[in-house]
Amino acid sequence: MAPAIITLTTDFGTRDHYVGVMKGVIASINPAAKIIDICHEVAFYNVAQGAFFIAQAYRYFPKETVHVAVVDPGVGSARRAILAEAAGQRFVAPDNGVLSQVLERERHTVRAIRVERFALQPTSQTFHGRDIFAPVAAWLSSGKECAEFGDAVGDYVRLERTDPVLVKPGRWRGRILNIDSFGNIVTSLPASLLTEAAGEARVEAGRIQTEHVHTAYAQASAGEPFVIAGSSGYIEISIKQASAAKAAGVEIGDRVDLIFHV
Amino acid sequence: MAPAIITLTTDFGTRDHYVGVMKGVIASINPAAKIIDICHEVAFYNVAQGAFFIAQAYRYFPKETVHVAVVDPGVGSARRAILAEAAGQRFVAPDNGVLSQVLERERHTVRAIRVERFALQPTSQTFHGRDIFAPVAAWLSSGKECAEFGDAVGDYVRLERTDPVLVKPGRWRGRILNIDSFGNIVTSLPASLLTEAAGEARVEAGRIQTEHVHTAYAQASAGEPFVIAGSSGYIEISIKQASAAKAAGVEIGDRVDLIFHV
Amino acid sequence: MAPAIITLTTDFGTRDHYVGVMKGVIASINPAAKIIDICHEVAFYNVAQGAFFIAQAYRYFPKETVHVAVVDPGVGSARRAILAEAAGQRFVAPDNGVLSQVLERERHTVRAIRVERFALQPTSQTFHGRDIFAPVAAWLSSGKECAEFGDAVGDYVRLERTDPVLVKPGRWRGRILNIDSFGNIVTSLPASLLTEAAGEARVEAGRIQTEHVHTAYAQASAGEPFVIAGSSGYIEISIKQASAAKAAGVEIGDRVDLIFHV
Repeated sequence: MAPAIITLTTDFGTRDHYVGVMKGVIASINPAAKIIDICHEVAFYNVAQGAFFIAQAYRYFPKETVHVAVVDPGVGSARRAILAEAAGQRFVAPDNGVLSQVLERERHTVRAIRVERFALQPTSQTFHGRDIFAPVAAWLSSGKECAEFGDAVGDYVRLERTDPVLVKPGRWRGRILNIDSFGNIVTSLPASLLTEAAGEARVEAGRIQTEHVHTAYAQASAGEPFVIAGSSGYIEISIKQASAAKAAGVEIGDRVDLIFHV
Repeated sequence: MAPAIITLTTDFGTRDHYVGVMKGVIASINPAAKIIDICHEVAFYNVAQGAFFIAQAYRYFPKETVHVAVVDPGVGSARRAILAEAAGQRFVAPDNGVLSQVLERERHTVRAIRVERFALQPTSQTFHGRDIFAPVAAWLSSGKECAEFGDAVGDYVRLERTDPVLVKPGRWRGRILNIDSFGNIVTSLPASLLTEAAGEARVEAGRIQTEHVHTAYAQASAGEPFVIAGSSGYIEISIKQASAAKAAGVEIGDRVDLIFHV
Repeated sequence: MAPAIITLTTDFGTRDHYVGVMKGVIASINPAAKIIDICHEVAFYNVAQGAFFIAQAYRYFPKETVHVAVVDPGVGSARRAILAEAAGQRFVAPDNGVLSQVLERERHTVRAIRVERFALQPTSQTFHGRDIFAPVAAWLSSGKECAEFGDAVGDYVRLERTDPVLVKPGRWRGRILNIDSFGNIVTSLPASLLTEAAGEARVEAGRIQTEHVHTAYAQASAGEPFVIAGSSGYIEISIKQASAAKAAGVEIGDRVDLIFHV
């Protein structure tokens, strides 16, 4: 039988013992679970980036995987913990929108977790990754039914949608979903728009305006901004061996325009 | 049967192949062992921070876990390698105090490891993580008895104790045990002192003096230093979304005072 | 039966979800595979450093291990993907020389991978780690024969050799193979030359000239450059608790001289 898989996505960084402690809690409850790190360097408190990472990652994991996403500026406040079922997988997270992009894409059920049943005792006010999310994920991975964790709710938090809008004829406006560590700008404009534009379009993001479209980094000249159908299925703006985000002066959430028929 | 667990805590960083090589050595001796990273970014040569991390982490792991802690400024010198049994778990480390905080808390037996029996050949003078500690941990995890590794000793190295002292009536003095990557200051003052103080106390660390006590980060105003019962069971000094350590100008080992009845 | 092991070496960094996604792809194909990270912080696009890491690491892993090395400035171009069999292990990588140091050391067979058979669909132009290398490694680890992946080829890319050359009597010239995160300079001069020199030699690298030889870091004085037989089997140049590379002003690939009979 395949081992249960638990993934972890946090903004805890890698310079502390926090992530290791979460893994100890999981191993104590379900020693057979296989733990896979998605990323622990989500920008600090950046729920939108966490939402992007988990939404990009889950589709490559097998059914039954339990995903834990802890980017949690509200830890210790009254915000709830939620458990979502979607795409045959399970997601455990604070109720702050970090699952938004998964839930936009998939049919789902969201439950408010009755944390008092599953939390480590004593339960800290500052480290729910250890005290609540890790044990809930471990119990889920060891076979407990979702319904045991709490009732379905409809009023969970959703982030503002990032889908592109046709702001006027020929001009699509999207948002920056992510800036990766190479400085590539991932937009919310689907790559299919590039095919549609067939080389007759301009992309604008901050200080960058470009009409160059490439199908591989290798085609670009050094220093030249260009757009490419990114591996995430979205249009990305890149500069070969340099940071497009720095050149453009943009951040996650900023707008990006695609103008046809230049 | 649950798989054997080996944890790793080092100051090797993540930019080299060193940790991966240790895992290869372990997998070659005991392929079934499950390896969990606690942290590989202990501040370089900072034995005290390593001691804090391992002491915080072990209690969340199951019995029989083998913990490896390699923060080892004396590698290649005459310093011994030790194996400690405590809390039903095993700890492998250089004899330089990195296990101090575990051994302060738990009944224990410490053995000097007969390294020549277990070391990889040839044994380097500079990478005992690979050549000594990884193979010892792997053999332990595969069922060898602790007694096979060496005789019990009493003269192992201990770091200076960090327990708080009542320096005069109403003034407790502790030490800074850790500064985490968010800049939170973890003191050696137990969180129970906060309850005792019931809002009538001042905490002083470097340039920070504060009488604010919160039970969750969410309660604090941006920029305001405050104390909180940390997830480690100690009083921590924090500033919401900023580095308290930077604001205070303090380092691990510096003193922290708690003054009652202000 | 021992679980199949897959190792990962990339320049993807740890600030994105890319490595986690590769692990999801592997887990979806072969959930039983055990994944071990060698390093994900190979200097960006630095094929020579990737070649060093994988060549240092593989020898500590058990037979049958599958190593994946993705440092891939040519992703999306016409460069091939290759599968090498050497030392009873398997290596999957872009055909750009990243396996050079392994193949220099071991008898080997190299195959050009028929990627269209194994790639995820759709296959991106920018993330072959996910779409090609991860699935090939997972299928290999689950028992597919190497021959199924493609035919043997002889014209794979090799990096310039780094073996030391006797440039004139008494003067060996090598190259810098790596600069580790402590700033230690790893040269291609075998440590055995130090034994031969028996204290009668000078090493020159950039601004550093030293005749000091130590057998352990603990013997050195702070600030003093010295040479040591490194854990990799090569002569290394170090400064205790400081960066030798910074002091010398050198980079990977720069030359290093060892002069006898000073």
